[in-house]
Amino acid sequence: MTTYPDKAIKYINENYRKYIDILKKLVEIPTVSATNTKEMMDCASLLSSILKEQGARVEVKSFGGHPLVLGEIGSGSNSIVIYNHYDVQPPEPLESWDTPPFELTMRDGKLYGRGASDNKGNIAARLGALDAVLPFIDELGLRIKFVFEGEEEVGSPTFPKAVEEKSDFLVAQGGIWETGYVGRDGRLGITLGFKGMLYIEIIFRGAARDTHSGNAPLVPNPAWDLVRMLTHLKDAMGRILVPGFHEGIKSEFLEDAEKLIEDLDPKRLIELKKDLQIEHFVGGLEGIDAFKALMTMPSLNICGLYAGYTGKGAKTVIPSYAGVKIDIRPVPGQDPNMILENLKRYLKDLGFGHAEVNIHSMYPAGYTKPGEKVVEASIKAAERVYGVPPVVTPLSGGSGPIYLFTDVLKVPMTGAGVGYYGSRSHAPNENIRVEDFINGMKHVALLLIEYASMLNEAESD
Amino acid sequence: MTTYPDKAIKYINENYRKYIDILKKLVEIPTVSATNTKEMMDCASLLSSILKEQGARVEVKSFGGHPLVLGEIGSGSNSIVIYNHYDVQPPEPLESWDTPPFELTMRDGKLYGRGASDNKGNIAARLGALDAVLPFIDELGLRIKFVFEGEEEVGSPTFPKAVEEKSDFLVAQGGIWETGYVGRDGRLGITLGFKGMLYIEIIFRGAARDTHSGNAPLVPNPAWDLVRMLTHLKDAMGRILVPGFHEGIKSEFLEDAEKLIEDLDPKRLIELKKDLQIEHFVGGLEGIDAFKALMTMPSLNICGLYAGYTGKGAKTVIPSYAGVKIDIRPVPGQDPNMILENLKRYLKDLGFGHAEVNIHSMYPAGYTKPGEKVVEASIKAAERVYGVPPVVTPLSGGSGPIYLFTDVLKVPMTGAGVGYYGSRSHAPNENIRVEDFINGMKHVALLLIEYASMLNEAESD
Repeated sequence: MTTYPDKAIKYINENYRKYIDILKKLVEIPTVSATNTKEMMDCASLLSSILKEQGARVEVKSFGGHPLVLGEIGSGSNSIVIYNHYDVQPPEPLESWDTPPFELTMRDGKLYGRGASDNKGNIAARLGALDAVLPFIDELGLRIKFVFEGEEEVGSPTFPKAVEEKSDFLVAQGGIWETGYVGRDGRLGITLGFKGMLYIEIIFRGAARDTHSGNAPLVPNPAWDLVRMLTHLKDAMGRILVPGFHEGIKSEFLEDAEKLIEDLDPKRLIELKKDLQIEHFVGGLEGIDAFKALMTMPSLNICGLYAGYTGKGAKTVIPSYAGVKIDIRPVPGQDPNMILENLKRYLKDLGFGHAEVNIHSMYPAGYTKPGEKVVEASIKAAERVYGVPPVVTPLSGGSGPIYLFTDVLKVPMTGAGVGYYGSRSHAPNENIRVEDFINGMKHVALLLIEYASMLNEAESD
Repeated sequence: MTTYPDKAIKYINENYRKYIDILKKLVEIPTVSATNTKEMMDCASLLSSILKEQGARVEVKSFGGHPLVLGEIGSGSNSIVIYNHYDVQPPEPLESWDTPPFELTMRDGKLYGRGASDNKGNIAARLGALDAVLPFIDELGLRIKFVFEGEEEVGSPTFPKAVEEKSDFLVAQGGIWETGYVGRDGRLGITLGFKGMLYIEIIFRGAARDTHSGNAPLVPNPAWDLVRMLTHLKDAMGRILVPGFHEGIKSEFLEDAEKLIEDLDPKRLIELKKDLQIEHFVGGLEGIDAFKALMTMPSLNICGLYAGYTGKGAKTVIPSYAGVKIDIRPVPGQDPNMILENLKRYLKDLGFGHAEVNIHSMYPAGYTKPGEKVVEASIKAAERVYGVPPVVTPLSGGSGPIYLFTDVLKVPMTGAGVGYYGSRSHAPNENIRVEDFINGMKHVALLLIEYASMLNEAESD
């Protein structure tokens, strides 16, 4: 059995170009879930036919939105579910791309294109990992379940329903989540959980239409309401002022998280500041405190602000409406619905009860305890592939509906992925390094082998 | 001489269609000064050739920006300067127009098109008025000077220079300003002055680029700075908090204004509320207090607010910059430069010294004293044409560089115009009523006759 990793690595070294070709085909389909429809089915069909070629039993099904691709291969008792999504963020602003976003372009050892990192590169790498372990999948007793979602970038609106209806299929002993990034120190980042998401839009309305601003002494301008309301959400030190905002956090999660945070290298924070050209973090946070804020605390952010004339030059107008897009990210133990209710009550108490509050997406956080076997297998596989131990973080600052696995289906999850610190996910010139693509493929293959071995050993104990 | 008005009215009744045709040609040239160049010269040439046909001595000249059209006709000692502008506001949002903005369309007795009211309709009507008085211009001792600007909608950046260089040409005994609107009560509004303008854009900057908002606990978001700064400019009652903001107002202006305001009909305020579907004015203002705020106090307004993602749906981002467009309108006696300096100092004292403050336009207010002959002539002409006395207001809530005449050249000015309460200037479906177009033409013709007669009488006294 010890030869399996060597065989898998040999296969990948000899065949990785095949999966770059698959990635090329995936990137060429503009699966922007926010705006496109036909392209979603095209991509789901492509993924279905690839999985079928590999010998998988495949189902493509819509649960009211863009189709979900479900594929299963192997029939052993060591089941593992692999979650990814084939939809991507809009490519705009187009003028900021050096090459067309929907054309995979190789340059300086890097592959550029929308979805190269988030999340098509990972899909292609997982498909390569599958081929690498296929020859001994039965010996390992593996049953691998793929689930490719088409709505992750729009908040996974129908995925909870899919998980409910397909729980028998999706439940497994362990799972691999969608992403992983290599840091500047060459170490793979393995994240044990993701924050939740409460994305809302708050709108204030004034006169029936935009009005000449000569009337400003008389006609109410909703932009003033908006800015006043927002200053009640956060103070100048970055402290969030919504009552109960920090309540409900799972103490077990905090304990686990604090232990992991102790091992993190503060150099990462210095690099982040340098990369973004900022002098200080919010509220002057540094070191452990900064990691704690990022990885254990809920966040509240202004994603977008709009009112009136925002084009070039000057236009004199009293806007008839003014709005803000806000993302709130709860941490494990917190109920996003309770945060929303607290926020609404707070707005009402402050005299902003006339504000419209629209919800774009809402789901809780989810995380896996550090000692889980699938995490151990992931760490061990990463050590071998990357030559250095991975950086294990308790919770990403970002969000994903991982709770559907960790909390609903009770499947422990580990991260793995082909991105790196410069991947520019969601931004122009999204890219991955070819080296990371190959390593990410190897990592998943070895993770599968290692995890199956662990489960087999545990059984024989 | 008493037959002159009758003759002028007869001419206009028989020939007004000719000037609708001229308006049609003017509207067809998209003279959007904010974005267009070639069209500006096309329109200036058209105006020049019309004036020449009428017998005027014409000069078309650029003072660094869009060309100015200067025309003079008559050689008497009773000089009057007529100011208008041939540039227009951008037509956007295009989808809100029922007919194309750059096509003059007649519907239900109304003429629709960008510039129909502001300000091409007035230009065409003034050209008609000129033809109506041409036969007896010498007997009246009139010398009429036209000045058509091409940059009013972008804050008249080079007009001060033009006025300086052309002061000998532009100086006159009296003048007619660009606009006038008929109210719901059928009375022409004559405005004796306009507020000034200080249009600024304040921008806060954060990270070098937009960043994934998972980093919100650490990466500063300039939108928070922006909203906090704005709440220091105005309180919840609409009171402006910038130190010294209400200082410097000319007491003579306030005395004149208060007398005129006493005669205003509060029904106008009720109609404004109804039209805009608002329940209350800012700070609960009503009646005389509302008129005073509108017509004697400086204003400060948010014209536009922008940060991050403002499109449909959700995008999770920390914006790298956030900005606001603000128009400040000083009243007579106030120095916009001093207001700007006070504002900058205030921002610095509040800890917002890092904000960028960009200036789009800056000029002071200007007004004419109620007893001036040109105002009396305008009132008398309006009484005859509209059958009811005009509504004389001390100062428009809106702005215009009228100070260049009233304060720099010392020319008393009066308003006159073809608009009405439903003209939707600066908005989609801008329009005038044909009836007002004809009456506006008659009003200017009779004003010219009346004013010349007054001056001749004064001389013979």
